[in-house]
Amino acid sequence: MTAPMFVGLDVGGSTMKAGVVNDEGAALASVNLPTEAYRGQEFGLQRMCETIRQAVAAANLRMKNIAAIGVATPGTMDLAAGVILDPPNLKPWRNMPVREHVQRMFGLPTAFQNDANAAAYGEYWAGVGKGVRSLVLYTLGTGVGGGIILNDSIVEGEHSHGAELGHVKIEITNPRQCGCGRWGCLEAYASATAVVKRAQEALQQPGVRSALSQSGNKEGGMTARDIFDAASSGDVLAERIVQDTAFYLAVGAVNAMHTIDPDMVVYGGGMIAAGDTFLDQIRSHVLQLAFPVPAEKTRICYAQLGSDAGFIGAAACARQLWKKTR
Amino acid sequence: MTAPMFVGLDVGGSTMKAGVVNDEGAALASVNLPTEAYRGQEFGLQRMCETIRQAVAAANLRMKNIAAIGVATPGTMDLAAGVILDPPNLKPWRNMPVREHVQRMFGLPTAFQNDANAAAYGEYWAGVGKGVRSLVLYTLGTGVGGGIILNDSIVEGEHSHGAELGHVKIEITNPRQCGCGRWGCLEAYASATAVVKRAQEALQQPGVRSALSQSGNKEGGMTARDIFDAASSGDVLAERIVQDTAFYLAVGAVNAMHTIDPDMVVYGGGMIAAGDTFLDQIRSHVLQLAFPVPAEKTRICYAQLGSDAGFIGAAACARQLWKKTR
Repeated sequence: MTAPMFVGLDVGGSTMKAGVVNDEGAALASVNLPTEAYRGQEFGLQRMCETIRQAVAAANLRMKNIAAIGVATPGTMDLAAGVILDPPNLKPWRNMPVREHVQRMFGLPTAFQNDANAAAYGEYWAGVGKGVRSLVLYTLGTGVGGGIILNDSIVEGEHSHGAELGHVKIEITNPRQCGCGRWGCLEAYASATAVVKRAQEALQQPGVRSALSQSGNKEGGMTARDIFDAASSGDVLAERIVQDTAFYLAVGAVNAMHTIDPDMVVYGGGMIAAGDTFLDQIRSHVLQLAFPVPAEKTRICYAQLGSDAGFIGAAACARQLWKKTR
Repeated sequence: MTAPMFVGLDVGGSTMKAGVVNDEGAALASVNLPTEAYRGQEFGLQRMCETIRQAVAAANLRMKNIAAIGVATPGTMDLAAGVILDPPNLKPWRNMPVREHVQRMFGLPTAFQNDANAAAYGEYWAGVGKGVRSLVLYTLGTGVGGGIILNDSIVEGEHSHGAELGHVKIEITNPRQCGCGRWGCLEAYASATAVVKRAQEALQQPGVRSALSQSGNKEGGMTARDIFDAASSGDVLAERIVQDTAFYLAVGAVNAMHTIDPDMVVYGGGMIAAGDTFLDQIRSHVLQLAFPVPAEKTRICYAQLGSDAGFIGAAACARQLWKKTR
């Protein structure tokens, strides 16, 4: 008997990525197609199936070589039902029966998962978390996503709201408003969007001097990258913004550590381009903030799979489902 | 074959309580003995075994009728090793091999667990959480303890620090100092101790009128009970302190909900004597603070087992161990 192969599909706001993954978690091939959610749900479901087909072709395989499929999408969602509900980044999709459609099209066991949960499972299976027993992942981008792996399972939660780690509250006295409309969420402090916002606020203080004063004028405006770059060049204001960001992320990590107490806390997403100095700052705050034993023993790392984490994790979910259904 | 019987022992700072529990989670009998930790470790281990023996006798059973034993103690501890490390409420005990001792004395499978974790498992097995799939418990007393049940298991954590829910941070700008020495922990806002402290601070504001002004003078000083009673009688300052406490607990609950997304959040411990008004206040804040789906669907309840939760949960751990070892 040949070793089983799995396809994972990671649907994002602008592109979707599918890849074939073997039983050891190695990606054989992957393809990207634009999501184009604006073209509607029917198109969206077809595009998902097309991306899956192309990934299989790119791996020089046929669908009959595939044991199971996994699909990861952004929330909101009903995981048990396999349905995307009302995802803010995929307008106008709504109440889309993703799992059922993909399963019917290919006649294969199909898993459905939240994208950050899938990324966490990907890193746990084939990335930086290989060999750990439990792991908490934060994805740092426009928002802050989260995924938790315990006992070889994703903590989905009873209402598909497990690991909404960007929306843990870290401030009550003078909370920032979050993109979710609520107040004091970690995401309102530590997402790339929040980093830029905090820098812009700081620049408006009287008498402030910073190289960042210029970057607001460039096309597209200031980015989190500009701020991390300025900090690396010794810009004092940018250094403070970055240091504060590390502190906020450490508070989030400590809250997860004092709840789950995992082997490892992992950061993924665009913002980890900030590099090792930033990671060391987070680690140093965690040492200050957490109880001594978890502070010392919990490994704080960057993710390793980059933008492949989602589809590899989706494939891992496919593999888990396939094992159960055999 | 007769149904198996289990003994649970819950060791507290002032007393220890043991009870015999049947396979359905019903307590047949229980006994209390003073802990008297000051008499030393040797005495403490003997006292534990004596309490277990008396509980078995009180149930008109003999040790040979018992299938397994569970012992719950306050932290700090090494759960995997079965050792109490350095518990602040059990001085001068230190590095005490509780599980090994009890196991050797009785020649029975012996489980070892944190007391709040055990209480959570007790409520899940035989209390308010009967039939739910997952549950988060807060014990509200001098401190704020926590326990999490997921997939019929206690979330112990990789370093025995799972569910340290009193030490999740809810404030970073102007944090209160916690009994643990760190800053901004839930416990620093919502324990009985913190409730009294906040009331005393409020009373020191100029021009304040409150019935509580008197209760500081009584023997033993003001208690959280005094504050909840004054709030029930319409004392404005006391009402605000209670309302704020409900808010802080709701922030903690939301952080757990956005991490674990359980079926149920349960409050136990002395402070739930405050009654249903207080519980409704917590619920109302959770509705405001959480994402709509978990806000609506997560049940927020008081514990039902009172001071029996610990030994019943310890017995549940014994039962789980016994099932595994058969």
